[in-house]
Amino acid sequence: MYALTGFGRSRPSGLYHRSPMAEFDVDPYAGLYARRTSGMSASEVRALFAVAARPDVVSLAGGMPYVQTLSTEHVIEVVESVLAERSDVALQYGGGQGWAALRDRLAALMAEEGTQADPEDMVVTTGAQQALDLIGKVLIDPGDLVAIEAPAYVGALSAFSAYEPRFLQIELDDEGMIVDRLEEALVRGERPKFVYTVPNFHNPAGVTMSRARREHLISLCREARIPIVEDNPYGLLRFEGAPEPTLRSMDPQNVVYLGTVSKVFAPGVRVGWAIAEPGVLQRLVLAKEASDLCGSNLNMLVTERYFAGEFWRRNLDRLVDTYRRRRDVMLSALAERFPADARWTHPSGGFYVWVTLPEYFDTPSLLAAAVERRVAYVPGTAFYPDGRGSNSMRLAFSYPTEDRIEEGIRRLGELLADEQELYRSLSG
Amino acid sequence: MYALTGFGRSRPSGLYHRSPMAEFDVDPYAGLYARRTSGMSASEVRALFAVAARPDVVSLAGGMPYVQTLSTEHVIEVVESVLAERSDVALQYGGGQGWAALRDRLAALMAEEGTQADPEDMVVTTGAQQALDLIGKVLIDPGDLVAIEAPAYVGALSAFSAYEPRFLQIELDDEGMIVDRLEEALVRGERPKFVYTVPNFHNPAGVTMSRARREHLISLCREARIPIVEDNPYGLLRFEGAPEPTLRSMDPQNVVYLGTVSKVFAPGVRVGWAIAEPGVLQRLVLAKEASDLCGSNLNMLVTERYFAGEFWRRNLDRLVDTYRRRRDVMLSALAERFPADARWTHPSGGFYVWVTLPEYFDTPSLLAAAVERRVAYVPGTAFYPDGRGSNSMRLAFSYPTEDRIEEGIRRLGELLADEQELYRSLSG
Repeated sequence: MYALTGFGRSRPSGLYHRSPMAEFDVDPYAGLYARRTSGMSASEVRALFAVAARPDVVSLAGGMPYVQTLSTEHVIEVVESVLAERSDVALQYGGGQGWAALRDRLAALMAEEGTQADPEDMVVTTGAQQALDLIGKVLIDPGDLVAIEAPAYVGALSAFSAYEPRFLQIELDDEGMIVDRLEEALVRGERPKFVYTVPNFHNPAGVTMSRARREHLISLCREARIPIVEDNPYGLLRFEGAPEPTLRSMDPQNVVYLGTVSKVFAPGVRVGWAIAEPGVLQRLVLAKEASDLCGSNLNMLVTERYFAGEFWRRNLDRLVDTYRRRRDVMLSALAERFPADARWTHPSGGFYVWVTLPEYFDTPSLLAAAVERRVAYVPGTAFYPDGRGSNSMRLAFSYPTEDRIEEGIRRLGELLADEQELYRSLSG
Repeated sequence: MYALTGFGRSRPSGLYHRSPMAEFDVDPYAGLYARRTSGMSASEVRALFAVAARPDVVSLAGGMPYVQTLSTEHVIEVVESVLAERSDVALQYGGGQGWAALRDRLAALMAEEGTQADPEDMVVTTGAQQALDLIGKVLIDPGDLVAIEAPAYVGALSAFSAYEPRFLQIELDDEGMIVDRLEEALVRGERPKFVYTVPNFHNPAGVTMSRARREHLISLCREARIPIVEDNPYGLLRFEGAPEPTLRSMDPQNVVYLGTVSKVFAPGVRVGWAIAEPGVLQRLVLAKEASDLCGSNLNMLVTERYFAGEFWRRNLDRLVDTYRRRRDVMLSALAERFPADARWTHPSGGFYVWVTLPEYFDTPSLLAAAVERRVAYVPGTAFYPDGRGSNSMRLAFSYPTEDRIEEGIRRLGELLADEQELYRSLSG
């Protein structure tokens, strides 16, 4: 559900159109809302997803991690030991930057991907989503240009849109962001405040930025003095191949790095972080304090303790194994069940496959029929601020079991085949 | 520490002056920050409070609840049962509005103060601080007028200031906000977007809004169609006397109500909430999702379970008893140790006493000397957006033991006596 929040997207067609809160037409405060709320609206997709939460519907929509691999007994032990030893801290307020021992631990987690990080340069946030909000708060004035990928993570669109930027959309291909397009824009005189990217196992596209593209992006942005915001929630969920270096490790001075434990431990503790150079960091901490004073000490202490042991590595292995098998099942099912002229990405990690259908498909308006056939996806339009993407969809393989994925793709394939037949009969 | 975040305050004198991040003069991003960050700065008071955290310093500064009354064993039991029964939910993402069973429970908690609340009208937030931020996000355009009390809760100043309002400050007296002053401002043509108030056991002033003032405020704002934001963190911490009705209970349509479990359970779970009518609520939920996707399910389930039993009432009794005795000790010590011409409030609940000294005292610049004498307070200037309050201070009796409070007031009294003597010898 959370993945469908809409700010600043305004495609006025089909199911995905914005009903501008018609139900609140008699709102006595109608004249009082801040201008930034004009882009906030509840889409009809939300209502549809409420239906899609029924157990008989196979949801390939939400990007929920499969927390069931965690040993509940182990998590209970962790929480128990934290409370038994440090309840005075765990239950109390903390500082705005976050529990120091946790910052040490998260820096060690970054070292697993080869990134050196100083815990002093880190602010702990309520998931990486809050880091996106704080970056918007600290860097975006209304009308500022922000460079994003096309498609882009919907949560970043929501977070940034609250600060009323314009978006410069840079297309992706199988090697990630097409950095040449960014360079062309800079040459044209475009001047983004920052460039936002998800280089590993992109949400929603599933692609990973190649080494050459990383090097190009780093040198281009360093020269142009445009900071990069690198969002890396899925980096440790690699199914095969060697990892590329993080952008932060390639140019610490010019990259703000965002991490989260949501995909390697549990979203329920809402622990994410940002690493930034001192000037940005200090402002992020002040903005964090203004936003919610401090994070949850209980969750921070629990997360610190969880990553102190070796258990987390065994769980990570289980997760990678589970997701790899689910990815494989999804890719095979797509090959078997989807129209011959559909294309999709082949992620080597993470949660998502991005499907591009022939132009005449309209995934926003198809969603109701899909839910009727007990399968759900996210229409591609959710991932563009300008209404593009109506012939694409995001499919998540992270949560449903292999059987369910196979069944979901079968149902979706039938729907697409029926639609295709209808289209051909009408146009032929 | 968290209580000292500074946005938008700019008194340029003494210890409390703003050093505009001098340490980052070589910041390569100096030109990139959003305009709203210009009021964000780290005051020298922050550095001083780092020193004040030493155990030999009696801190009457931070408003930390005394979480030590909680039974760790009981909290462990609560967390254990939640994880044993619902780890699939507790460790997962949740919806933006917050766990429905918790919303039911929090509505029941409001009923303890005589306020009827529909859980459907509630959004769970990361402490009430996040609700303040979301209200700013949803209601404040740059330049908008917001009516606040003078002095006002510093966290509300920080949260709102990020959205660049102007503040209309309404003085307080022993009966709370002087609503006549608000009425005069409205008659003059001032038009605040909303009125923000802490009616019970005010932070920082310690006063409680009288019944007559509540009725006046309610009728005035209803007539003027100006919504009221009622922040009630301390309402259940009443030491004596009968409670006044909440503003929300007097006019649900025109009052957005904010609550928190930080003072009746634990700040470490960061659970607060807002109750609002549908148009505002829906925007708050969308803004919440853009800010951090969702709250911590683990913390929400733990909080729900904590308030499900009867244990919380016993702990609340212990808290009220503890704080009442600490308040008594502080008031006696003040009478014994403070200058004859000092005045202070007599709170009947909550955490704070507000002290007003003769004009010639400058509490921001006195703080360094106080910390040297191993006692700390918050200078009054922190609670005004315009630098007023330099002869006042906030003293918190919530956290230090009775002995320490007595000792802290003794140290502070000596400092003030010495200052007074110095002043008289210089001016006499």
